[in-house]
Amino acid sequence: MTIRKAAILGSGVIGSSWAIVYARAGLDVAIYERSDDFRATAMERLRTTTEDSASLLADTDTVDAVLARISLHDSLEAAVAGADFVHECIEEKLDSKKAIFAALNDCAPERAILATTTSSFPVSHFAQDLPCRDRCIVAHPATPPHLLPVTELCPAPFTADWVMEETTAFMRACGQTPVHIRKEVEGFVLNRMQAALVVEMLTLLRDGLIDPRDIDAIISQGFGLRWAFLGPLEGVDLNAPGGIRQYLERYGFLFTDRARDYGLGDILPPETVDALEAYTRGRIPVEALPEKVAWRDQSILALRALKAERGSVDRA
Amino acid sequence: MTIRKAAILGSGVIGSSWAIVYARAGLDVAIYERSDDFRATAMERLRTTTEDSASLLADTDTVDAVLARISLHDSLEAAVAGADFVHECIEEKLDSKKAIFAALNDCAPERAILATTTSSFPVSHFAQDLPCRDRCIVAHPATPPHLLPVTELCPAPFTADWVMEETTAFMRACGQTPVHIRKEVEGFVLNRMQAALVVEMLTLLRDGLIDPRDIDAIISQGFGLRWAFLGPLEGVDLNAPGGIRQYLERYGFLFTDRARDYGLGDILPPETVDALEAYTRGRIPVEALPEKVAWRDQSILALRALKAERGSVDRA
Repeated sequence: MTIRKAAILGSGVIGSSWAIVYARAGLDVAIYERSDDFRATAMERLRTTTEDSASLLADTDTVDAVLARISLHDSLEAAVAGADFVHECIEEKLDSKKAIFAALNDCAPERAILATTTSSFPVSHFAQDLPCRDRCIVAHPATPPHLLPVTELCPAPFTADWVMEETTAFMRACGQTPVHIRKEVEGFVLNRMQAALVVEMLTLLRDGLIDPRDIDAIISQGFGLRWAFLGPLEGVDLNAPGGIRQYLERYGFLFTDRARDYGLGDILPPETVDALEAYTRGRIPVEALPEKVAWRDQSILALRALKAERGSVDRA
Repeated sequence: MTIRKAAILGSGVIGSSWAIVYARAGLDVAIYERSDDFRATAMERLRTTTEDSASLLADTDTVDAVLARISLHDSLEAAVAGADFVHECIEEKLDSKKAIFAALNDCAPERAILATTTSSFPVSHFAQDLPCRDRCIVAHPATPPHLLPVTELCPAPFTADWVMEETTAFMRACGQTPVHIRKEVEGFVLNRMQAALVVEMLTLLRDGLIDPRDIDAIISQGFGLRWAFLGPLEGVDLNAPGGIRQYLERYGFLFTDRARDYGLGDILPPETVDALEAYTRGRIPVEALPEKVAWRDQSILALRALKAERGSVDRA
């Protein structure tokens, strides 16, 4: 399957951002926008955003060429005609999702993938009873997707395997980093990850342990400088000479104690430790870890120089 | 109080890193290292680390000049003689901390601040009974401190106010970002923040929802690109037109629901919302938020260019 045309439903912040992702990958993009006011401003908004992120265009591409691939429509039927990939980006209300997927069932091309950018509703909450349900999938990005590559793909139990596979390949071809969520879960994974950190922050604030400015600094002047380059798992892999298995033997209690307090049970069974060892050692052998530490350190230094250059727009 | 000489106890990864922080700020630094083998290799290790991070030296400074400010000692008494600030960086064992602080009580200068870089033991666990206890404080960094600015300062109930104030000013003068932990708490705050994220990751892995590589990518190809520049609180302040108060009205349930599951009670009482509003609006007025969004977006683009340039040392 080759995806040549994408249809996007909704021209808000996320819909516009996806339009740029697909148009700069060379696809034709048709946006359905029912609001006259939104439709009237959409091209100008798209131009500004594409200009501001022009450094991500291919060398041979231009802002004008990208925008020329995008069309706007006041009719759903017209927008999805001939589309291989439909991405629903309308308001986050269950009834609205239900209605628009029912309409897609009737008017979208028979083989088109029907994706939703929802951040909260699993596909089975709104497409369960539709004949097109095997082609429905969640493709939810970090915001905004034209700047942040990671995109979580979550199938319903009834989503066809080929839909997951094609969507994965399509996202990669567009320069995104697709991640697979294997089961439908409340908030999927992206929002759960952010929530985990923010819940801890709010708890410490409520308990009077630290000020808001200081707790933000722990990330933006601390862990954030590492996490810009390394996920936390490959990060802790560098914090013991023997890699992650040794790290977890020494410091795993930091995590298991907390999990017990939260009623999460045993979060470090031997299978998980084995999986983490296989993952990290598959990336880099233990004898090369000092090389990765040196790479991390030089990366952090380069980021500090970049941050010094960019300064801040805060008043205080 | 002017801090002109620092003594560091222990020449391991953290002790050496602190030595560079203080020496590049222009201080004389005396390191106490009891191991002959460690002492023999210390200067070479310090040279390599200082050379590798030479971009952080002042324009008028050189690697040789920084190293010339550092001396090594096999006697605790000799190292701390004349020191204004003592930073204990020995092994993470309670008995060892107790013994060395008892020794410091006898041999450190009478007005010296006595800091510990411990990541797990509050000062009251090992200095409670010492006459010098009012001068004792935790100064625990992100690792390694010569690259990551954030440093948590945690006093015991008996630590004098001037010690907190002077240590804060000293850390700032050395280019660190000190954050205040108001009460002694297990793992202080830095480790709790990292643990919050890793606990969530391990739970999702154990439950088979996602693969390790994908969960790392959610940070390193997603949130980490934001958190390199913005703490999560000032980050969500940008995710609603009206700022953090409006964001929490709309999406606060993402956090409060989770907190309830974990038995953490109400983490968003009105006082916390008010404090967050005061903090964010103190940084930047609501009408300037679009300017901060544009700054964030350009920062992310610059970071993506930097990441593309640095590549990866992973084999797969």
